[in-house]
Amino acid sequence: MNPPSAEIGDSVEDIDTPALVVDLDALDRNIAKMAEFSRSAGVRVRPHAKTHKSVAIALRQIAHGAVGQCVQKVGEAEALARGGVKDILVSNQIVGTRKLRRLAALARDATIALCFDSGEQVDAASRVAQDFGVEFGGLVEIEVGMERCGVAPGKEAAVLARRIADAPGLKFRGLQAYHGRAQHLPTHQQRAQAIASAVDAVRETQDALKADDLTCEIVTGAGTGTFAFEAESGVYNELQVGSYVFMDTDYAKIGNKDGGLYTAFEHSLFVLASVISVPTNDRAIVDAGLKSYSGEKGSPWVHGREDVELTNVSDEHGKLVLGPKAKRLRLGEKVWLIPGHCDPTVNLHDWYVGVRHGRVEALWPVSARGAST
Amino acid sequence: MNPPSAEIGDSVEDIDTPALVVDLDALDRNIAKMAEFSRSAGVRVRPHAKTHKSVAIALRQIAHGAVGQCVQKVGEAEALARGGVKDILVSNQIVGTRKLRRLAALARDATIALCFDSGEQVDAASRVAQDFGVEFGGLVEIEVGMERCGVAPGKEAAVLARRIADAPGLKFRGLQAYHGRAQHLPTHQQRAQAIASAVDAVRETQDALKADDLTCEIVTGAGTGTFAFEAESGVYNELQVGSYVFMDTDYAKIGNKDGGLYTAFEHSLFVLASVISVPTNDRAIVDAGLKSYSGEKGSPWVHGREDVELTNVSDEHGKLVLGPKAKRLRLGEKVWLIPGHCDPTVNLHDWYVGVRHGRVEALWPVSARGAST
Repeated sequence: MNPPSAEIGDSVEDIDTPALVVDLDALDRNIAKMAEFSRSAGVRVRPHAKTHKSVAIALRQIAHGAVGQCVQKVGEAEALARGGVKDILVSNQIVGTRKLRRLAALARDATIALCFDSGEQVDAASRVAQDFGVEFGGLVEIEVGMERCGVAPGKEAAVLARRIADAPGLKFRGLQAYHGRAQHLPTHQQRAQAIASAVDAVRETQDALKADDLTCEIVTGAGTGTFAFEAESGVYNELQVGSYVFMDTDYAKIGNKDGGLYTAFEHSLFVLASVISVPTNDRAIVDAGLKSYSGEKGSPWVHGREDVELTNVSDEHGKLVLGPKAKRLRLGEKVWLIPGHCDPTVNLHDWYVGVRHGRVEALWPVSARGAST
Repeated sequence: MNPPSAEIGDSVEDIDTPALVVDLDALDRNIAKMAEFSRSAGVRVRPHAKTHKSVAIALRQIAHGAVGQCVQKVGEAEALARGGVKDILVSNQIVGTRKLRRLAALARDATIALCFDSGEQVDAASRVAQDFGVEFGGLVEIEVGMERCGVAPGKEAAVLARRIADAPGLKFRGLQAYHGRAQHLPTHQQRAQAIASAVDAVRETQDALKADDLTCEIVTGAGTGTFAFEAESGVYNELQVGSYVFMDTDYAKIGNKDGGLYTAFEHSLFVLASVISVPTNDRAIVDAGLKSYSGEKGSPWVHGREDVELTNVSDEHGKLVLGPKAKRLRLGEKVWLIPGHCDPTVNLHDWYVGVRHGRVEALWPVSARGAST
């Protein structure tokens, strides 16, 4: 693990770069806003830790009323459980005895649930849970338009739910009905339609479950792009929102076109970079590239400098192109970059540098960085 | 640091996933091939460690005749120096006293050189070198068509070289003349033309240096896409090739169109992934996404399975779409993914799992993972 880029008490100007910086005021406002939304909407929030991979942020969300955390990976569950998170939903399929055993070890001290979309996996998890003398919660993942994992809604899902309910060491707890594609659809109407269709799939499945005397304690889904629709659906009761804590340019772009929803949250996550070369009046080079932010959603934006554009990013460099009236950048000058995609950007860093009022207030490890198994 | 995904002696089938796997035979052949090329061409090889970030691979390259290593970051230099690499060129601008001090600490036990494109930086490095009682080698970076860092070739470069030569604690050692853009130009002819132009820029600069009685011990540049051109130029004497050890789809795509050069090296780097869901006959989902390989160069290829395409990658998932005649994939089945871009992919992982003849032979830490400061 690399050392942090600052010490607590440092001025923001003294943070070494590149660094993953969190504006703590903005982070706290984002967390409080989602907590308030969920209270008024009457649904639970179980934020997705795949975004932040951080015990510190998870505990902050839980202090604001979140019922626990979602994760994608056993390694993420281990990191959170070590940090004291006691209720974890693995919103994903876990395949392989080695991984199931690690999860079972956690289930001795924490409430652990995971998702299924095949009977073979139900049987494997049941065997391991029995072997460890623990119980796994089991959710059936249904296909709601994402075309990723998940069984067909309705009867096929109900058959799998029954298999979970009957399996020793497992307890049927509900449905995973996440529509990932819907999060980034460009218009409010498209997102509303996509989630309306997901809601139909959940209803169809609940009817089939009812016919077999099975009920859902949890119906979970939603992301930062659509959560208001799931919350008002009357069928979802947990939101697994992640990106709202940080935001990124990918969500902001949609917000700029579409207004409303996406502007509810602030950018709180930045990659702080420094100018290392000023070869011409209209060009400057920064010390942060694809090893400091992920590039698949395009180049980061330069926060507070609309006259400067980051282009031509490479492994460890980015090129700042200055507009005709932009003030020239100095060697060593810092720029605040807003990542294109927050989740894989966080996964590149070992530390969050938390800042408030121009000073470093917190150094948080990215507890589950690289924990992909 | 996360634990490795395997133990030495494990069968390849027992490697947990996702994992960064190196085919040691292919790696060794790539290293030997470049070593043989450089011997016959009469140029030195100083491979770029930004690709592999690994002490083990650096030492393998040096055992095959490489004169040392290139790095982009002080953190990479620290990791290599700790591992016993004694001759390191930072092929980049290093800005800030904190970073220069770390570099000076290394210069007590290793030969350290770095690049300059501003007088201000020459003065800063000179002050720190004197403070530590060490010597930094200094190279002038010249702009050869990349439009990133670098001063103009010719007189401007010679003025900066003189400033380095006259600065206490610094020793002028030569020119950094890397043409990054040329590496991925689509045709042999385009790459040849780009490097011919870079060679002209080097010649013009050498003439200006000669007029001031300065000579270049090192003229360095080249990457896996163009190294043969630099090697035969008569002006470059060091190749800072990186990707040839692993290769990736980005280089392979050009090779497939263009033949020749790019097919000289083998894919030796893979992200091993497992199927975690088989929702339909023509679709399977794997457990490796943007946190296991970088996505900015497109989705990885599925090694040895031309009838299967990886699409729709997300943070922790990838969708395998099976061709009409493709054999269906089983739950838990492993697939070998060839990354789009090797450098940022390596930076996501803590360990290399080195395999040979179907068994795990080596576990190497990615020594400089995340060492971006």
